[in-house]
Amino acid sequence: MDFSLERAREVLVRTPDVLEAMLSELSGEWVAASEAPDAWSPYQVVGHLTHIEECDWIDRTRVILEHGTERAFEPVDREAGFTRFREWTLNDLLHRFASVRNSNLETLDALIAVEDLGRRGVHPTFGEVTISQLLATWVAHDLNHVGQIVKTMAKQYAEAVGPWRELLPIIDAP
Amino acid sequence: MDFSLERAREVLVRTPDVLEAMLSELSGEWVAASEAPDAWSPYQVVGHLTHIEECDWIDRTRVILEHGTERAFEPVDREAGFTRFREWTLNDLLHRFASVRNSNLETLDALIAVEDLGRRGVHPTFGEVTISQLLATWVAHDLNHVGQIVKTMAKQYAEAVGPWRELLPIIDAP
Repeated sequence: MDFSLERAREVLVRTPDVLEAMLSELSGEWVAASEAPDAWSPYQVVGHLTHIEECDWIDRTRVILEHGTERAFEPVDREAGFTRFREWTLNDLLHRFASVRNSNLETLDALIAVEDLGRRGVHPTFGEVTISQLLATWVAHDLNHVGQIVKTMAKQYAEAVGPWRELLPIIDAP
Repeated sequence: MDFSLERAREVLVRTPDVLEAMLSELSGEWVAASEAPDAWSPYQVVGHLTHIEECDWIDRTRVILEHGTERAFEPVDREAGFTRFREWTLNDLLHRFASVRNSNLETLDALIAVEDLGRRGVHPTFGEVTISQLLATWVAHDLNHVGQIVKTMAKQYAEAVGPWRELLPIIDAP
């Protein structure tokens, strides 16, 4: 599927509602569960998404618009949200994520038109990238982490499902 | 995590809202996408979930309660929903799924108490299974298919994300 602003926006605008439907008021056993000692819980994933929402997508879009390939993006600390939001409840995080997402989409609408999608910037590791690659990554990053939450939850029932485990690939997915 | 009716119910009651948030009014390009020629689209996954919701979980629970290990479950046709719902829109399917799920949870509450969870029935392939394994599978089956929808969508942007693909494991997940 080729990237388009309209198709991308459809997914981006839905993610706060997806997370809300999935996690709001869910009990601590699910929300704090992880699939391995060093893996993120659903709660931590929402912290990560919120932190990245605050500092990544729109900032990097602006860097490309203002500096093109003259200035590389700052690297992002994927776990900085864990410190920043240490005292926050999950519901506070869900609301914060929804609010920043909403305002980022308004900014995106004001900032970007179709003819900007091919403009280039420099990623600190990958080198030259385009705005459309950055915005497609925003979408796929949402889906990646929603998938991570679902997988983390499914794995909690690895034993409980008994012999049905072999029909449920998510339980043994890497 | 051990199985409990309360924890299971928390997930089961949320799935219709998760699917609604994720897919309602989403454009056909996303909804009809698949990750391989023989793989299911998000639309087909919702058809499968709705069909299984109508014929599997509560029926099999009743078979165990009424016949124990004296009668094996009927096998389930995983793709029968594709024929049954051929003319249905995605929104019709989402509403039907939500309505059957809601009524199934009411039936579950009336049918099952904690002391029934260890009761045994016979699966046509796996042999003896318990009610708690069946109900845990109901939960994990939801999560498995929500994960499938998310993965199918993410893979549509496999090329669009450019070099970021290596940081997005869902895109190359099996």
